[in-house]
Amino acid sequence: MSSVTYKNLTECESFKALASLPPFDVTAVSAERVRDYQVALAAGLTYSYGAAPVEESHIAAFEELAAEQLLISKYEALLSGEVMNTGERRMVLHHLLRGQLGGTVEFNGVDLGAFYREQAARFSEFARRVHAGEVTGSTGKRFRNVVQIGIGGSDLGPRALYLALLELVAAGGKAPAMDAYFVSNVDPDDAAAVMRRINPEETLFVLVSKSGTTQETLTNERFVASLAAGPGFDVGKHMVAVTSQTSPLASSKGYLDAFFIDDFIGGRYSATSAVGGVVLSLAFGAEVFSEILSGAHEADSAAMNGSVRENATMLDAMIGLYERNVLGYATTAVLPYSQALHRFPAHLQQLDMESNGKSVNRSGRPVAYETGPIVFGEPGTNGQHSFYQLLHQGTTIVPLQFVGFRASQAERDIEVDGSTSQVKLNANLAAQIVAFAAGKEDSNPNKNFTGGRPSTLIHGDRLTPRALGALLAHFENKVMFQGFLWNINSFDQEGVQLGKVLTRQVLSGKSEGALLEYAKLLGVHDSI
Amino acid sequence: MSSVTYKNLTECESFKALASLPPFDVTAVSAERVRDYQVALAAGLTYSYGAAPVEESHIAAFEELAAEQLLISKYEALLSGEVMNTGERRMVLHHLLRGQLGGTVEFNGVDLGAFYREQAARFSEFARRVHAGEVTGSTGKRFRNVVQIGIGGSDLGPRALYLALLELVAAGGKAPAMDAYFVSNVDPDDAAAVMRRINPEETLFVLVSKSGTTQETLTNERFVASLAAGPGFDVGKHMVAVTSQTSPLASSKGYLDAFFIDDFIGGRYSATSAVGGVVLSLAFGAEVFSEILSGAHEADSAAMNGSVRENATMLDAMIGLYERNVLGYATTAVLPYSQALHRFPAHLQQLDMESNGKSVNRSGRPVAYETGPIVFGEPGTNGQHSFYQLLHQGTTIVPLQFVGFRASQAERDIEVDGSTSQVKLNANLAAQIVAFAAGKEDSNPNKNFTGGRPSTLIHGDRLTPRALGALLAHFENKVMFQGFLWNINSFDQEGVQLGKVLTRQVLSGKSEGALLEYAKLLGVHDSI
Repeated sequence: MSSVTYKNLTECESFKALASLPPFDVTAVSAERVRDYQVALAAGLTYSYGAAPVEESHIAAFEELAAEQLLISKYEALLSGEVMNTGERRMVLHHLLRGQLGGTVEFNGVDLGAFYREQAARFSEFARRVHAGEVTGSTGKRFRNVVQIGIGGSDLGPRALYLALLELVAAGGKAPAMDAYFVSNVDPDDAAAVMRRINPEETLFVLVSKSGTTQETLTNERFVASLAAGPGFDVGKHMVAVTSQTSPLASSKGYLDAFFIDDFIGGRYSATSAVGGVVLSLAFGAEVFSEILSGAHEADSAAMNGSVRENATMLDAMIGLYERNVLGYATTAVLPYSQALHRFPAHLQQLDMESNGKSVNRSGRPVAYETGPIVFGEPGTNGQHSFYQLLHQGTTIVPLQFVGFRASQAERDIEVDGSTSQVKLNANLAAQIVAFAAGKEDSNPNKNFTGGRPSTLIHGDRLTPRALGALLAHFENKVMFQGFLWNINSFDQEGVQLGKVLTRQVLSGKSEGALLEYAKLLGVHDSI
Repeated sequence: MSSVTYKNLTECESFKALASLPPFDVTAVSAERVRDYQVALAAGLTYSYGAAPVEESHIAAFEELAAEQLLISKYEALLSGEVMNTGERRMVLHHLLRGQLGGTVEFNGVDLGAFYREQAARFSEFARRVHAGEVTGSTGKRFRNVVQIGIGGSDLGPRALYLALLELVAAGGKAPAMDAYFVSNVDPDDAAAVMRRINPEETLFVLVSKSGTTQETLTNERFVASLAAGPGFDVGKHMVAVTSQTSPLASSKGYLDAFFIDDFIGGRYSATSAVGGVVLSLAFGAEVFSEILSGAHEADSAAMNGSVRENATMLDAMIGLYERNVLGYATTAVLPYSQALHRFPAHLQQLDMESNGKSVNRSGRPVAYETGPIVFGEPGTNGQHSFYQLLHQGTTIVPLQFVGFRASQAERDIEVDGSTSQVKLNANLAAQIVAFAAGKEDSNPNKNFTGGRPSTLIHGDRLTPRALGALLAHFENKVMFQGFLWNINSFDQEGVQLGKVLTRQVLSGKSEGALLEYAKLLGVHDSI
C-alpha cells in the first residue's frame, strides 16, 4: 500500500517555523512586488500574490512544509488510485476524468480511465444525435431545452459552468444549442418556476443522483413528470439518468439512456464527469465540454510541480493556510470581476466548505487547529456597492481572492468618458486590490483606511472554456493540498448525515421533544 | 436637538453584566423551550429562539441593555427626523415611506411624509397607465418588460423582492403584468446578457441613481441605449429615472418621466421607496407593492415595543450582539427554506455588512469591540448539500438564522412516499435546527456531532407581499438596533470611497506604483 506517511499540521517542524514568521505588511505593496510575485497557473492564467501577506521567508517555509507534508507524494498516491477517502474507503479519481497523470487505475478488473473516457464518448455522441434531431421528444418535437435535476454537486458546479460560458457561446449571434435550466431544491416552488418557463414536449431532463437515492432529486423527478404530463407525452422518452452502475436508476427501463459515474467521483468534484458533461454537451456541444476538460487537465499537470514558488495552486493553498492558521482569519471572500462567474463562488463555497470543514483528521482523531475557512462571494463591481464596506473598514479582516480577465465574454461594449466598460471593470479591480492592501490615512477617522487587507489575483485574457476548466481544477487542487496540509479527509461529508436521519424521523412520524415541536411550528405535523 | 445620549457598548454597565453570563448550552434544547421561546414579529410572522444560546438571565440583561442604550428613544429620535446619519449630517427616513410613526418631518418647509406618498401615488398611476396601454413604446408596442438599471441598493433589494414574489403572483396561471430584468454590473456582459433576451421595443428601462453620478449605472444607461438602437426607436420614450430632485437626471428632458427619492433614504434602505416601488409596481401592480409597505409598517410599529421579550426585532438584535461580542462568533448565515428567497441573503449581506461593518463610533472615534458580522447564505435544502458540512462539523461556529413558511408560493406540489415536497422541505428545516443544536454522539469521531451550534427561526404561513415587507423591515430594524448598541452610524458608507478615488486615478492615466502595475496586468494600460 502507501509509501507516504501522514501527520497533523502541528506536528510539522516546518509549520512551527512558518508560524513564527510575522506577516509581510501589505500596506507596503509596491510595483516591484506586483511584478515579481507572479506565477503561471495553467491555460494562460496567472496567479499574482503581490498583495498577499507573505515574502521570501514565507515562500522558503512553504517549500519546507510542502516537503514535510509530502504534498506531491500524496497527490501522486491519489492519482495512482490509493484509498485517499479513508472514511468511506474509496479512491479519489476526478483527475482521471480529465486525463491520465498516474498509472492505470483498475477496480474489479476495469480500467477506470477507459471507463470514464467511454462514458464521455457516449454522452458526446448522445448530444450530437439530439442536436441533429435524431433523438426527439415523445410528441415528435425537437429538444430545445435541457433541465438538470440534481442537488449539491449535481447542481452547483454544472450550473456555475453553464452560466460562465453562456454569453461567450452566444457571442456573435450563435445561440447555444439548447437552453439549460436547473431544478435542485425540494421546495416545490423551484421546479414549478422552471416548468412554468418551458414546454415539456421540447425538453430533455437529466436526472442526476450517484446513489439513486437522493430525496430531493427523486422527489423532483416525480414532480416534474406530473407537471409535464399531457396527451401523448411520455416522460420516459424525455429523461436520461446520470448515476452509478449500482444504483436503482441504472437498471430502470424508465429512461431514454443512462450515463455512468462511480463512487470515486465525489459530488463536489463531479463537474468534469457526466454530471456536468451531459448538460454542458447538450447546451454548448461536446467540443466546448472537451475544452473544459483540457484546461482542467492542464491545471492538474501544473499542480504536480514540486516547487511551491512555481506551483500556483500549491502556493494558493499555502497562503490560505498561513492566513487561516497563523493569522487567524476564518473567512475568505471570492470576488470574480466577471459577471459570467456570478455563481462560481457558490460552487467554491461547497467545494471548500464541504471538503475541509472538518474537525477530525484522516484517521478520525480530533485536530487541535483550525481547518477550512468560511467561503462566500459575489461578482465585482456589484460587491463594491454592497459588503465591501465591512471588508474595508470592518473590525474583522477577510482575505480576498480576486479573479479578472482582460476581455469580456460577449465582446459587446461601449466607450463612455474615454474608456470601455471592460476597462472600467478592471480599473475598479486594480483600485480595490490596492485600496484593501495599502489603505489611505485620513485625519477624519470615519474616512480613514488602515489597509492591511490581503488579497491574491488570478487573471487571464478571457474566460474561455479552457481557462474555466483550469480555474475549476485550480480550486479543486488547492482544496486537496490544504486537506493534505491539515491531514484531513477532504473527500467525505459525514456532517450531512445527522440531518438526513432526523428528517426521516420527522417524516415517519417518529419525532419527539424539540424536533417534534419544531416540526409542529412548521406545519409538518398537520399533514403526516 | 436630541434628548438622547450616546455611549459605547463597553461603557455600558449592563453590557458588562451580560458579558459575564455563560451562554445557554443549546445541546439542551427541549420541547418546552421551543414552545416558550417564541414571540410574534408582525404580519403573521413569529420569531422562535429556542435554539439560541440565551435563557431568562440573558433576556433580563437584554432589557437592562436596551434601557441603558436608550434603544426606543433613539428609534423615536430617528422617526422624528433627528440627524442620525451623523457623518453625512442627514436624517434617516426610510420608515416614513411605509407610514407615519413619529411626528411630521419637514425639510426646507416640505412635509417629507407627504412627499413620499405623492411619489408613491405618481408611480402607482404610471404603472396603471402602462398596464392599460396608455403609455406605449416609441414604435407603438405595448411594454411587456421592465429593466432596472442600478447597482447596490438600487439592485439587490428590488431584485430580491421581485424574485420573492414572482411565483406567488404567477400562481394560478396569472402572469405578472411585466417581466422584470436587472442590469447592475459595469461588466459589459451583464447588460449584453439581458439585452439578448428582450425586445427593446417592448421594454421600459428604469434608471436608478440617487446622486445621478453612479459610474456603473450611467455607463449602463448609455450601453443599453446603444444596444437598443434601431429604426424608429427613441430610447427617451423607453426610460424613466428614479433619482433625487437635485440630481442632473432630474432636470434632464431625456426621460419619459422621473420619480423622486432624497438624501434621507439610504441605498440599502431604499427597497420600499421609488427605487423598489417603480419596478415592483410595473411587474406586479401597485397593490402588491402597497401590501409590501403595509407589512413593513407593521414590523416598524412592532419594533417600538420597549420590552425586549415582546419585541422580536430587538431580541434578534440582542442575540446577534451576544453571539458577536460575548461568544466571539464573527459570521452569521441566513438560511431561508424558501426558494423564492434565494437572493434575499444577498440583500441582507449588503444591508448588514454595509451598515454595521464599521470601526469608528458615530462620533468618529475608534471602537474597541467587534461590530457587524460577515453575513452569507443560500436557500435550504440546497445549502444542506453544500456548505452545511462545515456548519455541522467545522472548527468555526457560525450562528444560523433560519426562515420558513408552512405553505409554498406556487401551491403546485406532489405527494411522494406519504408527504408533499413542502412538508419534506419543512421536515428538513426542523431536523437541521435540532441537529445543529443538539448534535449526536457517535463513537466514531468522524460521525460525531458535538452540536452547540445556535440558531433562530422566523416562520409564518406563507410568503405573501405583506409577510415579505415585514421580513424586510425586521432585518432593517435589527441592523438599526445593533448600530445603536454598538454606538455606530449604520447609515453612511465611507468605506466605499477610496476604491472610487483610485479607480478615477487609473482611468485618468494618473496611477503609479502598485496601482499602475495591477492596471497593466489587467490590460487597462493598453487602452487608455
